[in-house]
Amino acid sequence: MFKNAELGRTLSEARYERAIPKLRSSLLQAHFQLRNQKFPVIVVVSGADGAGKGDLVHRLNEWLDPRGVSTHAFWAASDEERERPAYWRFWRALPGRGRIGILFGSWYTDPIIRRVYHKIKGRRFEAALDRIVAFEKMLAAEGALIVKFWLHLPKDAQKARLKKLERDGRIAPDDWKHFKLYDRFTKISGRALRHTDTLAAPWHVIEATDRRYREHTAGRVLLNAINTRLKLATIAAAKAKLAPAPAAKAAPTPVPKPRTLQKANSVLSHVNLKQKLTEAEYDEQLKDQQARLAKLAWTAYEKKRSMVLVFEGWDAAGKGSAIRRVTQAMDPRLYRVVGIAAPTDEERAQHYLWRFWRHLPRDGTTTIFDRSWYGRVLVERVEKFATPEQWGRAYEEIVDFESQLNDHGNIVHKFWIHISPEEQLRRFKERQTVDYKQYKITDEDWRNREKTPLYAAAVDDMVARCSTPFAPWTLVAGNDKLFARVQILKTIVQRLEEAL
Amino acid sequence: MFKNAELGRTLSEARYERAIPKLRSSLLQAHFQLRNQKFPVIVVVSGADGAGKGDLVHRLNEWLDPRGVSTHAFWAASDEERERPAYWRFWRALPGRGRIGILFGSWYTDPIIRRVYHKIKGRRFEAALDRIVAFEKMLAAEGALIVKFWLHLPKDAQKARLKKLERDGRIAPDDWKHFKLYDRFTKISGRALRHTDTLAAPWHVIEATDRRYREHTAGRVLLNAINTRLKLATIAAAKAKLAPAPAAKAAPTPVPKPRTLQKANSVLSHVNLKQKLTEAEYDEQLKDQQARLAKLAWTAYEKKRSMVLVFEGWDAAGKGSAIRRVTQAMDPRLYRVVGIAAPTDEERAQHYLWRFWRHLPRDGTTTIFDRSWYGRVLVERVEKFATPEQWGRAYEEIVDFESQLNDHGNIVHKFWIHISPEEQLRRFKERQTVDYKQYKITDEDWRNREKTPLYAAAVDDMVARCSTPFAPWTLVAGNDKLFARVQILKTIVQRLEEAL
Repeated sequence: MFKNAELGRTLSEARYERAIPKLRSSLLQAHFQLRNQKFPVIVVVSGADGAGKGDLVHRLNEWLDPRGVSTHAFWAASDEERERPAYWRFWRALPGRGRIGILFGSWYTDPIIRRVYHKIKGRRFEAALDRIVAFEKMLAAEGALIVKFWLHLPKDAQKARLKKLERDGRIAPDDWKHFKLYDRFTKISGRALRHTDTLAAPWHVIEATDRRYREHTAGRVLLNAINTRLKLATIAAAKAKLAPAPAAKAAPTPVPKPRTLQKANSVLSHVNLKQKLTEAEYDEQLKDQQARLAKLAWTAYEKKRSMVLVFEGWDAAGKGSAIRRVTQAMDPRLYRVVGIAAPTDEERAQHYLWRFWRHLPRDGTTTIFDRSWYGRVLVERVEKFATPEQWGRAYEEIVDFESQLNDHGNIVHKFWIHISPEEQLRRFKERQTVDYKQYKITDEDWRNREKTPLYAAAVDDMVARCSTPFAPWTLVAGNDKLFARVQILKTIVQRLEEAL
Repeated sequence: MFKNAELGRTLSEARYERAIPKLRSSLLQAHFQLRNQKFPVIVVVSGADGAGKGDLVHRLNEWLDPRGVSTHAFWAASDEERERPAYWRFWRALPGRGRIGILFGSWYTDPIIRRVYHKIKGRRFEAALDRIVAFEKMLAAEGALIVKFWLHLPKDAQKARLKKLERDGRIAPDDWKHFKLYDRFTKISGRALRHTDTLAAPWHVIEATDRRYREHTAGRVLLNAINTRLKLATIAAAKAKLAPAPAAKAAPTPVPKPRTLQKANSVLSHVNLKQKLTEAEYDEQLKDQQARLAKLAWTAYEKKRSMVLVFEGWDAAGKGSAIRRVTQAMDPRLYRVVGIAAPTDEERAQHYLWRFWRHLPRDGTTTIFDRSWYGRVLVERVEKFATPEQWGRAYEEIVDFESQLNDHGNIVHKFWIHISPEEQLRRFKERQTVDYKQYKITDEDWRNREKTPLYAAAVDDMVARCSTPFAPWTLVAGNDKLFARVQILKTIVQRLEEAL
């Protein structure tokens, strides 16, 4: 992997000085065009210690328009970061569309360092690399341009460089420690680079001995990458103008066809909606389950286990009131309810999963999502806000997302509250007459109702494709609100009892 | 303070059941009208342990429209919170305009608990209360409606309540410990309430023994508060329609009159713009200062001291290039540059200082603001984006903000880079011709130039009113870029050497 980066390439000062003004000018121009584009640029700066990663970060910041760049350096994780799934800190740092994010250190650092120091075995290392490939592929599929730099230094060059850094007082605490492991570090990082060198996110290995050469090369690579993408975007826009073309085949993900609703085949048809509770049964069971949940929530807190609950369901299925029966049992310090409505502009500028990552709970607490990332494969699919390619690949992305939560120790559970069309109609009408329920019914609800078969097909696919042992769906019989609430509480209690 | 809350008031179940549907309906209606309004509602829920604060939080969430409410419970601070000025965690939790934020626990908890346990003396306690008054006044001045509930329990009622909570497994770890200090707790919190019971943010002490009474009362107080404000807003809107009335006198802050620019009197006229460095002097001094800064930045990291640097100045004064000479010396992991441009919609929905709080550095690191909160008293004043009342009171708000940074141990320094109008003109023209500088010059720059006297007056006021020993302004002689860069580096180095 690094053979080509040990050729002793340099750039003379004269040539550098001649080349740089033009490069800067082109970079700025590209950066300006980027603003009107709908994709983010993610620049990963990695490589050997002392190879000038920091200098390159400084240089790129100098060359680009500061208003459109943000730089994130990853270092010791904060407790807020450690207490969430590993990628949470990276999601926090992703640039929005039209912006460039320079990541100094990245998702590569931790697996490589841990493997170098034998903290993880080869198998877990490979798994970590697989996760990286999936992550980058997912970002790229939504349009992100990913440019990854690896600055390589031959061994003697690294030694010389560290000595100089030390003289200047600019050496970082672990630099010498790493140097002793140069050969192992080179082998492991070579392995990582080969594994993660994909079409979606290719590596650019740059010989780093000469400052002028490495900076000029990195600048040109970045410029080319942006310009190529801009050209593609221009062509695509021109084509789109000519004819309302079918959505471009960005990824070869097989697209599930919306099925016509076969009532008998639908998973929802197997939900026994006749189940109900008497008031007396309800009062007793609710009280019992809530008391158990109250204690379990504290136990989860003590054991530092967090919980992610998802509530989806038909309009008027009773999500809100079911959630309240859950939260009533929990100390308000132990949970947050996140209602998912229209995204803010900061959210709209990001990958669709970003706005869920930002709400993940700290260890020991619970986040309850009132609607969730499943909007991608429900409303966005049915209303065609997402292309078939987008919602088609979302199933996999969602399972991966939930598996990351599980890896971190989150207890993930998802509820679809099912009601019959007849019961829905009854509730809609009730909402129109009961004073404080009026706000709950809108024209949109009536429109959604007409699309029931499409939604039912989407629910079928969703349950089929996103049911995992670590993040199961529970289909709740919602015609009787009392039964539904108790069913949900019982499920959560049981899940917690098993997990804690 | 609590005499009126020990009268044994209750509400019968029958009356409660009759009253609640109407209350809910009115609350929802008020909540809906709120959406179109430009103010946030901050509900503080405080009081004795076991007084039903958690229940009240649950109830308010039940009664209000979940899409327009967020609840924040404050508890043990995370390290990200501890490593920033004390109010950072509260700023994170403030609701945006048109929304209701329920704060369970708040800025009151810490001072009261610390005083109860003798961790702080009376004088620091009073100072903490003064800060609260200033904070609430500032939020209210920008339109926030602040509703503070204190749930009071007589001693025997608290004991009974804690016993019941214990049986239900819902007791929090410190509850019994606090109870032993009931009398002291009551005395101290009474003191706090009296001190912070202001027109801008009045207290509502509620007798909390009876669940129905306390919830109904709290609901009605909240409803009245919102409705009163909505009425005022309607009246104001109607008045505004009738005539382009002068801005309403929201606060009695004296408004500084924009002075005509007396060149000789301006602070800027005292900056000796003739100062310059030769290339050789520059190279030597830059290298020397950068090396010192590099080491000092690591020392600051080790000592967990953070730094906040503000860069303001005329257009084309060289802020960007000066900032780069600072950051070049620092490890990229130790600083962030935050460029302040147009606010995002999440930022626009908040108090104007909110978007700066979110970028404050963690202990041991530096945030460099390229433009800052001083926009309030510069561009917003000159362009009339802020009313005279708004920018008039901003000086005090800013000094208080910076003193909070100082209290936490942040090293705050502010630079105004000054250049003469002639030098500015020269640079504007140069920007129009040099290829990669073209993007830096816009029509707005030319327009701003015409308002130079107004800006100069604003700078005068700013420097006069916001220069403090803990957050001084340095007026930088910017006509010679080399001199300016070195002056800035020297100032930072000196400041760090004194502070560390």
